[in-house]
Amino acid sequence: MTRITLALDAMGGDHAPEVVVKGAEIARERFPFVDFLLFGPKSAIEPLLARAPKLAKVATIRHTDVVVAADAKPSIALRQGRGSSMRLALDAVAEGEAQAAVSAGNTGALMAMAKFALRTLPGVDRPAIASFFPTARGESVMLDLGANVDCDARNLVQFAQLGDAFARSVLGLSRPSVGLLNVGAEDQKGREELRIAAQVLRDGALGAQFLGFVEGDDIAAGTVDVVVTDGFTGNVALKTAEGTARLISGFLKDSFRASLLAKIGYIFARPAFAKFRERVDPRRYNGAILLGLNGIAVKSHGGTDALGFANAVGVAVDMVVHGFLDRIRGDLAADTPPVVAAS
Amino acid sequence: MTRITLALDAMGGDHAPEVVVKGAEIARERFPFVDFLLFGPKSAIEPLLARAPKLAKVATIRHTDVVVAADAKPSIALRQGRGSSMRLALDAVAEGEAQAAVSAGNTGALMAMAKFALRTLPGVDRPAIASFFPTARGESVMLDLGANVDCDARNLVQFAQLGDAFARSVLGLSRPSVGLLNVGAEDQKGREELRIAAQVLRDGALGAQFLGFVEGDDIAAGTVDVVVTDGFTGNVALKTAEGTARLISGFLKDSFRASLLAKIGYIFARPAFAKFRERVDPRRYNGAILLGLNGIAVKSHGGTDALGFANAVGVAVDMVVHGFLDRIRGDLAADTPPVVAAS
Repeated sequence: MTRITLALDAMGGDHAPEVVVKGAEIARERFPFVDFLLFGPKSAIEPLLARAPKLAKVATIRHTDVVVAADAKPSIALRQGRGSSMRLALDAVAEGEAQAAVSAGNTGALMAMAKFALRTLPGVDRPAIASFFPTARGESVMLDLGANVDCDARNLVQFAQLGDAFARSVLGLSRPSVGLLNVGAEDQKGREELRIAAQVLRDGALGAQFLGFVEGDDIAAGTVDVVVTDGFTGNVALKTAEGTARLISGFLKDSFRASLLAKIGYIFARPAFAKFRERVDPRRYNGAILLGLNGIAVKSHGGTDALGFANAVGVAVDMVVHGFLDRIRGDLAADTPPVVAAS
Repeated sequence: MTRITLALDAMGGDHAPEVVVKGAEIARERFPFVDFLLFGPKSAIEPLLARAPKLAKVATIRHTDVVVAADAKPSIALRQGRGSSMRLALDAVAEGEAQAAVSAGNTGALMAMAKFALRTLPGVDRPAIASFFPTARGESVMLDLGANVDCDARNLVQFAQLGDAFARSVLGLSRPSVGLLNVGAEDQKGREELRIAAQVLRDGALGAQFLGFVEGDDIAAGTVDVVVTDGFTGNVALKTAEGTARLISGFLKDSFRASLLAKIGYIFARPAFAKFRERVDPRRYNGAILLGLNGIAVKSHGGTDALGFANAVGVAVDMVVHGFLDRIRGDLAADTPPVVAAS
């Protein structure tokens, strides 16, 4: 396999740079064909690399002392963060030095910088944030998860096209099914922009792959491979699902702490619990993708550990290896641009 | 205790009238001070009451053969459903014969008819649908869950006032905390109507009870007692939470079926599982409340069983017994109507 290069923002996230370097070490084992550029202060990264000699062989430090604050406003990060670890990682992708960038830093800043450094793909008005999530049938993709709080029909149609290309390249599906998130499955339900977008998708852009409207419970049911929504609704849905999963896990723990019999039961069932926990482990689904850009950028959860960060790196590797960018460029060129009234 | 009368739509829901009558029988045991009016075909209800002689003593059948179809469009149900079991139950509340109505029928039709038959409270532009849900800290209330897909700042402020009154009367809290659902906790986040509503709530309508913006994961965490949102977002969040809970329960079942050891563990831990299941049992949280009307109307889930229906009846009883209507009327009269620009 041809070697590929990933640019890592070594200073993004709550536990940087430790988690980033340890995550890269795990990723190196999984993907021996990857070289890493690590952006951040040499003095902080070098001692960590000294303890990971195999990683050190395939990693290069690109020194900078500038770091984007976790709570920086995107506009300020964009103006003042020109030499930051986050921005330099994106610049490496823009300049063709790396095939993808991964950061666990501030999402808003990353999106703003990525739009500026990588530019959006021709035919895409606004990039979106996408992620995988577990379903009863396997895995699905949802977008937008928060980049655009207000979306018109045209944005939603483009998100559907981006999600389709993403599911085909990364989930390996030949004709992924796509649904628009709404408050009911009937055609006349919901907001006007949804009805217009549904019409456009049905008539042209996606044809039979478009299954119409889906509801909140269809997300986890896996009714469609790609769930399309505006960034406000997607963000609330994602966080509601995370919160619910946490609540239920808490209830389960409480129940098993409540009696001696339950504790004995737990001992017998420990492998079953381990399997269960693995399936709902949020680290497994770490890695939100900035879709619609002229380059690959992946956002890791800021609070994740090395394993979670390695999974975000894995998403970036998948996108590079499966030629996501060529695929989406081809799709956007082939499709007649949808004529959609702003709504 | 003074006796109260509830009007039940005996023909609403997937398993009517059986579930309604059996649910009323369970509710009768819990609330011996309640009389029931059962609206529906005499020929279908009479045989069921014959098998529930104690319920028969406190129940009166009000015959009608007209039933609102589960998939009827609200506007058509409103025009053609004048003599229906759903409408007559609401009329009984409007005319003071009953103190509350409960239906497991078509939500849209119920809301349309309730607005027409009961009218909205003075000072309320649009009624909302509210429900309880379990949290890490107990129970909270969320509204709107789907009555209004588009809401302006004024609607959101009114929902906050309705939710506050509801939490005080039914959850028994003296100063419930209230949050507006958004995509971030910072003041400048999200849509404009949210920022305006937050300003109004902070400055006057709720004062210190208003804790600002909350995010999707705050719903299950129980960060606030009342979560306020538009009907589109609320509907998606509610169904996403339900879907996630179902997915995780499915994963858990799979894990315990996977090995003999796990099955042995399950036997020991059965009481723990029973306790866990009870805590996440959706029947426990059945009963969505139509808030903002000049009368009490509760919507039961259409697919619930008798226990779930009895819980919806319980919500109606709570609202009557704790004087919800007087409380909200007092609140709305006391508050200076919030001056909110349409957004």
